[in-house]
Order: sequence, then C-alpha cells, then structure tokens
Amino acid sequence: MNEVYMDMAIEIANGGSGFVNPDPLVGAIVVKEGRIIGQGYYKAYGCEKAEIDAIKNSVESTKDGELFINIEPELSIEDKSYIDFILNSGIKKIYLGMENPKSGFKGQMRKILSHLGIEVVYNILKEKCEELNEIYTHYVNKGTPYVFTKWAMTLDGKLASRTGDSKWISSEKSLEFVHYLRQRVAAIMVGENTVKVDNPLLTTRLKGITISNPLRVIVSKYGDIPLDSNVLKVDDNVKTLIVASTKIDEKKEKEIISTGAEILKIEEVDGKLPFKEIVKLLGEKNIDSLYIEGGSSLLASAFESGIVNKVYVAIAPKIIGGQNAVTPVGGLGIEKMNDAIRLKKVSHEIVGDDVIFKGYIAE
Amino acid sequence: MNEVYMDMAIEIANGGSGFVNPDPLVGAIVVKEGRIIGQGYYKAYGCEKAEIDAIKNSVESTKDGELFINIEPELSIEDKSYIDFILNSGIKKIYLGMENPKSGFKGQMRKILSHLGIEVVYNILKEKCEELNEIYTHYVNKGTPYVFTKWAMTLDGKLASRTGDSKWISSEKSLEFVHYLRQRVAAIMVGENTVKVDNPLLTTRLKGITISNPLRVIVSKYGDIPLDSNVLKVDDNVKTLIVASTKIDEKKEKEIISTGAEILKIEEVDGKLPFKEIVKLLGEKNIDSLYIEGGSSLLASAFESGIVNKVYVAIAPKIIGGQNAVTPVGGLGIEKMNDAIRLKKVSHEIVGDDVIFKGYIAE
Ligand SMILES: NC(=O)c1ccc[n+]([C@@H]2O[C@H](COP(=O)([O-])OP(=O)(O)OC[C@H]3O[C@@H](n4cnc5c(N)ncnc54)[C@H](OP(=O)(O)O)[C@@H]3O)[C@@H](O)[C@H]2O)c1
Ligand SMILES: NC(=O)c1ccc[n+]([C@@H]2O[C@H](COP(=O)([O-])OP(=O)(O)OC[C@H]3O[C@@H](n4cnc5c(N)ncnc54)[C@H](OP(=O)(O)O)[C@@H]3O)[C@@H](O)[C@H]2O)c1
Repeated sequence: MNEVYMDMAIEIANGGSGFVNPDPLVGAIVVKEGRIIGQGYYKAYGCEKAEIDAIKNSVESTKDGELFINIEPELSIEDKSYIDFILNSGIKKIYLGMENPKSGFKGQMRKILSHLGIEVVYNILKEKCEELNEIYTHYVNKGTPYVFTKWAMTLDGKLASRTGDSKWISSEKSLEFVHYLRQRVAAIMVGENTVKVDNPLLTTRLKGITISNPLRVIVSKYGDIPLDSNVLKVDDNVKTLIVASTKIDEKKEKEIISTGAEILKIEEVDGKLPFKEIVKLLGEKNIDSLYIEGGSSLLASAFESGIVNKVYVAIAPKIIGGQNAVTPVGGLGIEKMNDAIRLKKVSHEIVGDDVIFKGYIAE
Repeated sequence: MNEVYMDMAIEIANGGSGFVNPDPLVGAIVVKEGRIIGQGYYKAYGCEKAEIDAIKNSVESTKDGELFINIEPELSIEDKSYIDFILNSGIKKIYLGMENPKSGFKGQMRKILSHLGIEVVYNILKEKCEELNEIYTHYVNKGTPYVFTKWAMTLDGKLASRTGDSKWISSEKSLEFVHYLRQRVAAIMVGENTVKVDNPLLTTRLKGITISNPLRVIVSKYGDIPLDSNVLKVDDNVKTLIVASTKIDEKKEKEIISTGAEILKIEEVDGKLPFKEIVKLLGEKNIDSLYIEGGSSLLASAFESGIVNKVYVAIAPKIIGGQNAVTPVGGLGIEKMNDAIRLKKVSHEIVGDDVIFKGYIAE
C-alpha cells in the first residue's frame, strides 16, 4: 500500500505545476489505520509546505498517523517551529519518495527526526518521484534550466509542409499534451522563423485548472520579428524575452522594448547565439526549465550544443511528401548512423492514432 | 471456440507465405467433439488444397467432424471429385473465414454443399481473414499488385544521414519484420539511387523457414546502375527486373540483359516512368503484390500516383539532424496540412524501443 499512497502524493503534487518553480512539486498524504485522513500540496512558490497543509487538513487526529511526502523537505536542526509542528501532530512514521538533492539537506530528515522518535523511510516509488522532480534536481545540481524539446511530425518525418504549414499535424489529444508541458515549465522557446510563419501565442490553454503561462523566449538575432506578433503582446500574465545578438540595431531594440518585452543580449559566436550561454543566463534568472518547441533550425542548434535533456515527439499517421518540407531537426547533421544521438529510457504513449515518444539524452 | 479454430487456420495458412502467389493463403483445421484431429495448408502454387490436406492428415475418422477454412475455396458444381471427397469424409459442417472474392465463386460453397446436407457458415473472424488475404482480394478485383511501402526512419524523420548512410536505423527486431514482408510478396522494388548508395541484396533472410525470394524490381530510367551491383547477381532463386525508359541506350540494355536480369521498357511521361503503368504491367506478369522499400524519390512517385495500399513505418529513437538528410517521402510534396494523405485503420506495434506504424490508404 505504501506505493499507492506515494502515488497519490505525486498525483496531488501536480496541483502546483507551473506555480512552484524553481522549488519542487510536493504532495503529502496522512494515513491512519489504513484510512487517508488528510492531504495537501505545495501550491505556489513561498506557500505553506505540503505536509503542513496535509496535517492541518486532516479530518481526524493525526496522532500515530503516517505521513507520505514525495520528496524530502529542506529541513535543518534550526527549524524549531517545523519540528515542533511535526512532533505535536503525533505522526509516528514518515515515508519519503526521494532524498532532497541539495547536499545540505540530503538525508537530514531522518537524522533529525529519528532522534526524536519518528521513523523516516526513504525511496518509496523512487523512480517516479525522481521523474516528477527531474527539473528541480537538475536545476539544483547545474544551475541551468532542464531542457525539454517536443515536436509534432507527420509519419513521413515533416515538421511542416513545403510552404511551412503545420496546422495541425497531430490530433487534439496530442495537442493538449503541449499545454500540459507549457504549464509545467518556467520558459518556452521558439525561433524567429516560427514566430513569422505561425505567429503563435505560446500561452497555456487547459480547461478546468488555473493557468500559469511560461516566459516566452524568442531567439531572434537581430530582432527581425513583426512588432504586431502575438508573442509581443505582453501583459502581467504573459511575458516575453527576446534573445538577441549584442550587435542588434539600437532602433530595433527600442521598438521591441516598447512592446513590453525584455531583451537579453548575447555575444555571437560564429554568427550564432551560443546555447550554452543562453541557458546559463536563463538559469541566473531563476528559470529552472525550458521547453523548446521549434522550429527546425533552433532545434538543431539546441541538439548540437548538447543542452537537451528530455525529448518528446508526437507522430501522426499522415503523409505529406516534399524534399524541401521542414525537417524536425535541421542544421548540418551527423554523417554516420553510428554517431546518432540515442535516447535512453524510451517509452511510448499511444494517443488515438498518434504515438508520443518520450526519451532522455544521456548527459 | 470457432474463432480460436479459425485463428489456428490463419496461423498455419501462413506456412504458404511467398509460395502460393497469386493464389490466396489457405489453412484448414478439422475438429471433432472439441478435439483438433487434422490440419493442413496450401503449400505452394498448384499444390493440394488445404482442406484436402487437413482431412487426409486427420488422425482419426473425420465422420461428423467440422472443418474450418480461412477463405472459401473456388468451388463449382462441376468439381465432382472434390465434392465426393468432402461427402466421403463425413464432415457435417464447414466454417469459412470469408467469401471467395471472385464473383463466379462467391457464396458457391454454401449453395452447392447445403443441398447435399453439409451446413456452411461464413465470416468467422472475418476481418482477420480479410487482412490475411488482402493481396489476393485486391489482385482479383484490380489485376494490379497490392502495394506495400515500408521505411525505417529516425525520430527526427530521416531515412538516411546527409551522407546517405542508413545502416542501421532500426533495431534488429524491426529489421526482421522487413524479411517477413519480403517473404510474403511477389516483388520488391527500390530506386536506382538506393542500389548505388546501399548496394542491397534484396533477398529474404529468415531463420527456420524455407525462403522464397521476391522478384527484385529496380526503377532505373536509363539503366545507370553498376553492373557488379548485388541486385544484378541473378540466379534461379533470385531474379531481377529493371524498369527502364523506352529511351534506354541499346548498349546499356544489352549489358544489363547479359547479367541475367530482365528489362521492362516503359514510355516516359514528363521525364518519369508512370507508376500506374508499371503496376499494370507487373500485374500482367502475375505479380500480385509489390513492396516498395525506397528511397525517398521513388516513394514520392509512388504516393503521387496513388498506387500505395498499405504503409508500414518503423521509427527508432535516434536523432541525427541535417536539413539535407534524406526525408522518407521526397518529391514536391503537398502545400496544405489539410490535404495530407491520412492513414486509415492505424495500429501500432512496439518492438523494443522502436514503434512500427501500420495503416491503410483509402482507395
Ligand atoms: N510541428 C511542430 O511541432 C512545429 C513546432 C515549431 C515550428 N514548426 C514549424 O517550423 C518551421 C520553422 O522552422 P525554421 O527552422 O524555419 O525556423 P526556426 O527554428 O523557428 O527559426 C529559425 C531562425 O532562428 C535562428 N536560429 C536558430 N538557432 C540559432 C542560434 N543558436 N542563434 C541565433 N539564431 C538562431 C536561425 O538563424 P540562422 O538562419 O542564422 O541559423 C533562423 O533565423 C515553421 O514552418 C513552423 O510551422 C513546427
Ligand atoms: N531507411 C530506409 O528504410 C531506406 C530504404 C531505402 C532507401 N533508403 C535510403 O534512401 C536514399 C536513396 O533515396 P533517393 O531518393 O536518393 O533514391 P531512390 O528513390 O532510391 O532513387 C532515385 C532515383 O529513382 C528515380 N525515380 C524515382 N521515381 C521515378 C519514376 N517514377 N520514374 C523514373 N525514375 C524515378 C529518380 O529519378 P529522378 O531523379 O528523375 O526523379 C532517381 O534517379 C539512400 O540514402 C538510402 O540509404 C533508406
């Protein structure tokens, strides 16, 4: 049953998706004599801790209860009020999905609480808990955003037709998946050409939940995008950052800033804006996760620079042909099949007639 | 249980794969009081019928037995010896997977045998039986080969790297699938460039079964392929047909014929060899099925001409990049996503980390 409770903690942790970054998603369940008596989650950055929420929400006394949390909290011996709260709750055993990846907190909960008579058990449903917070762990360790890519392609491997048309390749169900990913991440990125061709909003559209919009990041060397583009309609809820060259024309820069968008200027290297530098600077801006949606040229740059961590590809059973249609990952490309980037831990989800591949790129 | 017996009939019918064309694959099972007492299949073109084989093979008297056959035999009132054989066997009921698609034979078995006291039931596991003999039904109706395409591509939609390297995209398990398809069909086709780049054998390699090699068909307008190519190594078991333009150079033609290969000459239309004409002529040569393996340009021609019936695509979780890498279906391509060729009755098979899509193109 421990795995079942932990799975519920993961499920409810997702309620914080899009609101807690760069903190982890946390859910907590209180169980007593085989009954779930309380649950809670970390709702937004700076809010009350999930386990405190769960204990407070409990419908009966938590004395002798058990607590399930998907990730070890940041606990130090100085957190007197937190420790007192747990002691007063009467919880006798705590199950954790994974250790806290921060070296100062790793394993601390057991060290501190077991001395006070509370048993602490680690690694319940560990892999699933680790996947839930892969963003957090990566950001803690590297200080740069965890990078996802996702594209939708036809069964003959096209991102768009020869005229650039890509509406719509995948089914509505697969499209919904894009919005879950947008909800989860701190930032979403597309290339200049995608803005010109598709004029996307890059906002999150999901029914039945409170929406969080990621920062829209547009790679546009010289700011050559129409000023009436949807991504330049900026307000309090949807912000935009243009990543441009330090050589961008001053007038252009001012025009863009006048829309409310920010500009991040980066030194060109061989005519490109180096991705390693882009993610470093985004990391410094508290961006823990970046979802690169395309197009072809931008994805090629991203893969070449080795910054991609996780790949999603939705494939729809349609054939459009075209030697010059847009290929998912452009650029120069590798020469030998043997040098291909191979995905690890591959899994597949069948969504109607589409298939969504998921896989990781080894670091 | 009827479905289970029919499924077994389908299973053993496959034993004739590659040997019965352009006849159908046929398997038969004799059941008595719930026991399987005999089985047989149609082994090769012109051999004994599956149901006769099954009755002869029965380990006890077939009197009052039931017979399962996946497709209605070609039966006419004149087939005295066949009818007598069935009557003498004492079989009292016959289950058929599907009707014979030939108008002269459709429904005849019931008409003829029910008068003689044998009950005949149609359409047991109909869809599966129809898929098993989709080649036969198509060839009977149209007189042209049933056309399969199959390609293997990377997760970023490439048939080969920018240098043309395609060894190996998919896993060994997915590759094995190619050989089952080769075994099944009467002919296999590739374009001239694939011969030059890959120098394939285009033979069937499968362990544990007797191999049948399809006719190798190479589309090569002016016969511009190296004379020492593997496909020009012709013997009694592996034959080759070069589809060329009527404008092919006479010397070239003689050189090719000297290797043992045949040449089929076709009038060019706008510089291309029209596929509708190619399949018509192959049909006249008793070719009931054609498997087009690639490459990009040939597949584009095939899709444009509307001759493709069934599509298989194997997708491997590898990324190679390259704006100019080989795309699965080249050519000009369509303009609008809405005009895409949509596959029907799509299904997916997960083979290790690869996914094989299967789908039909509406006629
Ligand atoms: N199906 C899908 O999931 C999907 C998703 C998104 C887009 N799309 C389609 O993809 C197409 C657009 O793809 P695309 O390749 O033409 O355009 P893109 O990748 O959106 O943008 C290309 C632009 O970005 C620049 N760029 C890329 N990497 C750079 C770097 N490291 N530094 C500076 N600039 C960089 C390129 O500059 P250089 O020319 O200097 O390299 C080029 O100007 C559209 O048709 C769109 O519909 C499809
Ligand atoms: N991964 C896989 O499953 C797979 C399978 C097979 C091949 N491949 C790869 O695909 C690449 C080859 O593809 P490709 O497109 O370059 O070559 P291809 O399709 O094998 O052959 C192209 C040639 O065929 C001709 N052709 C096509 N349709 C024609 C028609 N209707 N009439 C007359 N000629 C016609 C073309 O002539 P025109 O120039 O006049 O059009 C061209 O000369 C190789 O790298 C190979 O490794 C991969």
